[in-house]
Amino acid sequence: MLKDKYSILFEPVKIGPVTARNRFYQVPHCTGMGHVRPQAEAAMRAIKAEGGWAVVSNQETEIHPSSDMSPYAESRLWDARDIPALRLMTNAIHAKGSLAAIELAHNGNHATNLYTRAPSLAPSDIAADYIAPKQARAMDKADIREFRCWHRMAARRAREAGFDIVYVYAGHHMSLPHHFLLPSTNDRMDEYGGSLENRVRLTRELIEETKEEVGDTCAVAFRFAVDEMAGADGMQAAEEGRAVVELLADLPDLWDVNVSDWSNDSATTRFQPEDGYQTPYIEFVKQVTKKPVVAVGRLTSPDMMLSMVKRGIVDFIGAARPSIADPFLPQKIQEGRIDEIRECIGCNICVASDNLSVPIRCTQNPTMGEEWRRGWHPEKIEPKGRQEDALIIGAGPAGLECAMQLAKRGYNVTLAEAGKAPGGRVLSEAGLYGLRAWKRVADHRVYDLQQRANARMFMQSGLDAEAVIELNIPNVFVATGARWRRDGVGRSSRQPIDIDKDMQVLTPDDILAGIVPATGPVLIYDDDQIYLGGVLAEHLNELGHDVILATPASVVSPWTEHTLEQSRIQKSLINRGVLLKTSQKLTGANKAGGVLSCVFTEQEQTLNCGAVVLVTERIRQTALYDDLKARNDAGKINLTTLKLIGDAATPGLIADAVFNGHMAARHFEKDPMIADQEFFRREMVELPAEDMAGMNPKTA
Amino acid sequence: MLKDKYSILFEPVKIGPVTARNRFYQVPHCTGMGHVRPQAEAAMRAIKAEGGWAVVSNQETEIHPSSDMSPYAESRLWDARDIPALRLMTNAIHAKGSLAAIELAHNGNHATNLYTRAPSLAPSDIAADYIAPKQARAMDKADIREFRCWHRMAARRAREAGFDIVYVYAGHHMSLPHHFLLPSTNDRMDEYGGSLENRVRLTRELIEETKEEVGDTCAVAFRFAVDEMAGADGMQAAEEGRAVVELLADLPDLWDVNVSDWSNDSATTRFQPEDGYQTPYIEFVKQVTKKPVVAVGRLTSPDMMLSMVKRGIVDFIGAARPSIADPFLPQKIQEGRIDEIRECIGCNICVASDNLSVPIRCTQNPTMGEEWRRGWHPEKIEPKGRQEDALIIGAGPAGLECAMQLAKRGYNVTLAEAGKAPGGRVLSEAGLYGLRAWKRVADHRVYDLQQRANARMFMQSGLDAEAVIELNIPNVFVATGARWRRDGVGRSSRQPIDIDKDMQVLTPDDILAGIVPATGPVLIYDDDQIYLGGVLAEHLNELGHDVILATPASVVSPWTEHTLEQSRIQKSLINRGVLLKTSQKLTGANKAGGVLSCVFTEQEQTLNCGAVVLVTERIRQTALYDDLKARNDAGKINLTTLKLIGDAATPGLIADAVFNGHMAARHFEKDPMIADQEFFRREMVELPAEDMAGMNPKTA
Repeated sequence: MLKDKYSILFEPVKIGPVTARNRFYQVPHCTGMGHVRPQAEAAMRAIKAEGGWAVVSNQETEIHPSSDMSPYAESRLWDARDIPALRLMTNAIHAKGSLAAIELAHNGNHATNLYTRAPSLAPSDIAADYIAPKQARAMDKADIREFRCWHRMAARRAREAGFDIVYVYAGHHMSLPHHFLLPSTNDRMDEYGGSLENRVRLTRELIEETKEEVGDTCAVAFRFAVDEMAGADGMQAAEEGRAVVELLADLPDLWDVNVSDWSNDSATTRFQPEDGYQTPYIEFVKQVTKKPVVAVGRLTSPDMMLSMVKRGIVDFIGAARPSIADPFLPQKIQEGRIDEIRECIGCNICVASDNLSVPIRCTQNPTMGEEWRRGWHPEKIEPKGRQEDALIIGAGPAGLECAMQLAKRGYNVTLAEAGKAPGGRVLSEAGLYGLRAWKRVADHRVYDLQQRANARMFMQSGLDAEAVIELNIPNVFVATGARWRRDGVGRSSRQPIDIDKDMQVLTPDDILAGIVPATGPVLIYDDDQIYLGGVLAEHLNELGHDVILATPASVVSPWTEHTLEQSRIQKSLINRGVLLKTSQKLTGANKAGGVLSCVFTEQEQTLNCGAVVLVTERIRQTALYDDLKARNDAGKINLTTLKLIGDAATPGLIADAVFNGHMAARHFEKDPMIADQEFFRREMVELPAEDMAGMNPKTA
Repeated sequence: MLKDKYSILFEPVKIGPVTARNRFYQVPHCTGMGHVRPQAEAAMRAIKAEGGWAVVSNQETEIHPSSDMSPYAESRLWDARDIPALRLMTNAIHAKGSLAAIELAHNGNHATNLYTRAPSLAPSDIAADYIAPKQARAMDKADIREFRCWHRMAARRAREAGFDIVYVYAGHHMSLPHHFLLPSTNDRMDEYGGSLENRVRLTRELIEETKEEVGDTCAVAFRFAVDEMAGADGMQAAEEGRAVVELLADLPDLWDVNVSDWSNDSATTRFQPEDGYQTPYIEFVKQVTKKPVVAVGRLTSPDMMLSMVKRGIVDFIGAARPSIADPFLPQKIQEGRIDEIRECIGCNICVASDNLSVPIRCTQNPTMGEEWRRGWHPEKIEPKGRQEDALIIGAGPAGLECAMQLAKRGYNVTLAEAGKAPGGRVLSEAGLYGLRAWKRVADHRVYDLQQRANARMFMQSGLDAEAVIELNIPNVFVATGARWRRDGVGRSSRQPIDIDKDMQVLTPDDILAGIVPATGPVLIYDDDQIYLGGVLAEHLNELGHDVILATPASVVSPWTEHTLEQSRIQKSLINRGVLLKTSQKLTGANKAGGVLSCVFTEQEQTLNCGAVVLVTERIRQTALYDDLKARNDAGKINLTTLKLIGDAATPGLIADAVFNGHMAARHFEKDPMIADQEFFRREMVELPAEDMAGMNPKTA
């Protein structure tokens, strides 16, 4: 049986004074909730525990006002007042039988202290790690003593808040212990700088002091980036990375090892398609320490997990993103429901949420971040009400999700798709270079629907209003998507771009449909500025085209800064020989080529090209919906439900379409007032008692 | 008497059903506090009322979850739960005898609804106004009806929260009424699009409905940008701008008029040195309406204010930034204390705070944003304790502020400066092209110190430790600043840059000191990436040099995006003929010139130049402090206080130095525990009662 095959993954493992009930370990990851949204954070982490993660960690936790990550919504434990918010989380995790871990952090020059206005600290004088007008001060001995004291006090508060595992954190270039470890940020000449032993000193002290303070009841974990993935220019697993592990070997109760920086640790499938990609870097660790080891690498394959444990590479299967895409991944493996796993597609929408200081989102799991606010559970949904049948038109991400959830609720679901295969934009975009893994969004839902007797899918079934009426299904969800504009209207121009008829004009939809640009260079004009323009440039280059990418942005695909991909994209395009024309608007095209105008000076240049691909805005495909609505409003037909969902309602990311389809399914037959109340549920700032409301500000 | 001269400014003025006690009107401005920090917001606004502003407005106030500006900390009035937080503010303003105004806003496609995940709305289908993967949906008639209803309900809640003036807002390209007004964002074909009358329709309805709802007790103000400052490409004051005012003439109770976009309305002195710069655009308004008019333009001169009222240009002196720099500006004019006004320098640090979602800061007024948290008052400070004398070494921004505040507290203050004149970096940077107004930071403090019998300033008085000891003052504040590195170490390289001895290497300090680069192009290498590199490029170009600006950033001076200056800077430099080399690190310099390496590909190029100016990082000037500290620690001298402040402690902005000097003066002789408590005072999220803390997340 499948269950037995994977039983080794469900053995309990001791970590210092505590014991994890199985080998599934949600390593610390950011959520955009933290101290700003503690109830949402607690509810989300509890879902992970419920889904079978034996250890559920929080995220980097500021231990002092001099490590103030505002406006980013991390965890906070500056003093005792922060304990109740964190206790919400530990209580909720314990209630589901799991261990709660906390990642104590002082972010050094990675914290700009914008809110507290405290000085930033670092091993050596150094600029802030963000483009911020602040330099961190080299810590003197008194600073180091104080920092150690803050860390110790934070450990004490962490235990009081109910955590079972307390981290010392040296990873992602984001924490003081890491900054002390790396020669590039530590040029001290005292006993905390120079030799590796000196650079490790602070980490050793922190681990020792944390054990001293809470080690009798809490495990002390050490999170360490063994390799900077910068070759000889950085710390390497085979060199100092290993030496650090050797120096500290059995001192921590657990090693949580990864690679830095964040963009390497959380590599997207676009640039790192292989699951388990960190294994070559971390596999030495268990040879050096007798303590349990956890590692990550976008692990979603149970067989790979099994192999990693059996081969003695790790004791725990670490996960951040796979636990976001499927909080019930452990339970599904334990119950042999492997095919039901909702696999992470490695798109980093989760990372983008945190970078935008808003609650975590996930393309695959639309309930992520909505556990508290809307009461959504990733595996449960309310059974159907009085209605029996639903028709969903369009099998893109919104249509598929809506159909799947309605089928789960028990409706008889008919899903009609005009194309040959289900998936819509997911299917077509997954055909582009680098995005293959995105197809999992469709695969998961198609598989699920195929298992259900109450769901029918029809391909090549483009419907018009008459056909819809003929089907006689009273509840209709229209997910007909959006198509890219062909006239150049977009962020930078509200007027159509003047393009000569002799110039071939293509849209992303044309390229996705396999239309090949004419001979001569192809000019991609990216006024969308999200991800697709850059993907198309790579894709067409890969197909052998001579590609020019012009954009009004100062970099290629600026939005992908949030998914940690921007510099990789620009580097890849330059190395491929794609000609980049940044800070340029396309103002026209004629026989001589595309006419570009500098966004700063309006100076024009004309670039020879044989075709122009316009990536600007999308047009919602609402003709069918409009037709049905007009007839329904006029009383000519009598649909109980007629709802526009996905990109046809509001063009956005695939994640937005999935979310929108999910919400439509949840809200179907629900009292709109109740749905509205959930939408409004939010965390508010505590105010003084009413009689103090008129209080004048305190004056010195 | 001065008081009488300005008495017209202190006449009461009726606004619909309410009366302002004088003509000083703080127009709506953002604070980075809003719904996230309501107590801080209330305390700050109350200080303005106390300082004499007859009307104190809040900031754009989201009226519905589909106008969710997260992560920006604006005001929020989605439903009744938001009323108590806003009532804190109105109560505090009323207690000081002023009127409270609220700017209701639906931000249309300027709101990306990252937190709520609601669809964005707009007159026409259009991309989000930020680089966000979202398009706004064209509102249908039902959407417009709903929006009007939301606005009406928000007005009702605003009155309940205690506001006296309720705004309809069509400015800064940031609100739905504005989007409907502008042809560039409204291509509707129904009665809400096309002719100006149609485009004004929504605004008219909102004003009428707001009056209907609350107009009996509240004034209804209309904030309108009369000119987009884009010539014929946008709305112009002389054309449609005037026509809008004519169409609505006496409908609102008050006209609050300005120019758009935000960067034009809040122009910095660097690009718009003239106070009252909006007058040519708005002066027609009072000819068209009989209702009172308020306008802005960085007005700090009482004579200009007087003239504007006398000439019938405005009824109210509007201010955002001048009221931030000096909340007591009205009171100072009323009391004839004109010389004591702390004039806005037009640096937009206030704007940057809001853009960074942290509480508002001000270069001139270090108490701004600290009224609640630290209990700081811009005009009051605790009298001195037991100590009598203080020595401040260095008359830069930190030293001047510290000296001034200590003198206010009653200490005998000795301020010693090595240079010829007080001001430090403020004085030298104000000598650069475009930054002249920054000198006000020094002027205000020098003037103040000159009035005080207990303060002495000594110029050309560089002190060494022996000289300090000789002075025999037990309390020493060292504000010796920082100097720019000469070795190229900075964000992009932790190793010195290899520069041939034949190449002239200059630092910003050299340029500030008037050293002239050698013949041949001068290559400015800006690895600081804040503002100075771009300023130096303009300055040296202005002096006739052939200038190259290289930077690892993708744009020039990227941080100035926060101060709304970035695109102006880049445009100015290109138009001046400065050669820009973005995304380039400087890796060396030799006889052939500067060697640049692409940050993406490491491809190298060499650019001919005669001198290199390195704008990378700064070195804190702590030699004197270190010397004194060593002697004091060793017991050789016995200083009661020895404190490093300003850039010498932590290099940052001028605003940071002023703040740090201020804090040192406030904390002098204060119990550190109490100072610490203030530092920690903060607004926290309300948690459920203790017995619910273990509650499991709600599941559907």
